[in-house]
Amino acid sequence: MLSPLIRDLIDALRVLPGVGPKSAQRMALHLLERQRAGGLRLADTLQRALNEVDHCQVCRNLSEQPVCGLCSHPGRDDSQLCIVESPMDVLALEQSGGYRGRYHVLLGRLSPLDGIGPGELGLPALIERLRSTPAIREVIIATNPTIEGEATAHYLREATRDLPLSMTRIAHGVPVGGELEFVDGSTLSHALSGRRPI
Amino acid sequence: MLSPLIRDLIDALRVLPGVGPKSAQRMALHLLERQRAGGLRLADTLQRALNEVDHCQVCRNLSEQPVCGLCSHPGRDDSQLCIVESPMDVLALEQSGGYRGRYHVLLGRLSPLDGIGPGELGLPALIERLRSTPAIREVIIATNPTIEGEATAHYLREATRDLPLSMTRIAHGVPVGGELEFVDGSTLSHALSGRRPI
Repeated sequence: MLSPLIRDLIDALRVLPGVGPKSAQRMALHLLERQRAGGLRLADTLQRALNEVDHCQVCRNLSEQPVCGLCSHPGRDDSQLCIVESPMDVLALEQSGGYRGRYHVLLGRLSPLDGIGPGELGLPALIERLRSTPAIREVIIATNPTIEGEATAHYLREATRDLPLSMTRIAHGVPVGGELEFVDGSTLSHALSGRRPI
Repeated sequence: MLSPLIRDLIDALRVLPGVGPKSAQRMALHLLERQRAGGLRLADTLQRALNEVDHCQVCRNLSEQPVCGLCSHPGRDDSQLCIVESPMDVLALEQSGGYRGRYHVLLGRLSPLDGIGPGELGLPALIERLRSTPAIREVIIATNPTIEGEATAHYLREATRDLPLSMTRIAHGVPVGGELEFVDGSTLSHALSGRRPI
């Protein structure tokens, strides 16, 4: 016996990832009971972000400026370009602190069954970017190690054979802190074939 | 390297219960990448709910009407009044389907250390409601079985001794489906002292 508006709010909260009916209920009542100011700020910020944030014209990452902070940052290394599937991946790489080059965000991966081909991913524009930016010396393909991610990496490799670029793929292997015993066979065989002299 | 507006959105999402920095980040990017329509609906519904939902004048439950659906429902049993701490508790009891009477929501519990006394909980108004509504024959106190919840129940019991009411407390005992082995001692002793003939 919830009032219609509270029911609407619970419904609307289910749009958030990982939020089921019970959590949505708890969130709605929490906001209404104890966090009205925070809730209003959330509504307002969400509206502004959805209206203003678009894709960077250079790398396709999310940004409210036409060119995002990473593309316009003067201190980044122009000779490296890292290709990732989603803005979340950029964030993960940035938080690792191990990369100082530029990015390109595909916003997806090749998946012909879902109707996502090179055109949908903007691969022609990416290849044009590679061709017209001589500063780029190395392209690091950091798509996910899934079938689609590998297919995307393969496509990019083939489509840029004629360019004077070194093309690399991030390493797949045993996660740091992981134990061999609990690592799956496919990762282990990647780790073996990717072994390096020490 | 997130744009300021996306960072604001991640911050604002942390107001939701159970949402830490990682989930907030995932939620923000999910909304911006894949759920723009749902996000706008959420912003709008949240704003409307926070502006319109207030407390029912009769039972203090959350409602956008002056008198909530449970208080105005003609099919409920006027002779029973269940006193709970929060709107969440009303929801839980309604979903259990075992109760058809009316409710009163305290919006808290007695907690002198936090400066919450009978006045802050509106207990004088509640006692006045009991006094002026002769239809109420039984008051079921369903505050939580915590020290504060018990103190609140005790206060209500004492303050209404002169009224011709039967005052009951919900049963505490072994949860249905639970195993004795895993139930704490205090619950077990409640279960024993509350035993009933079968």
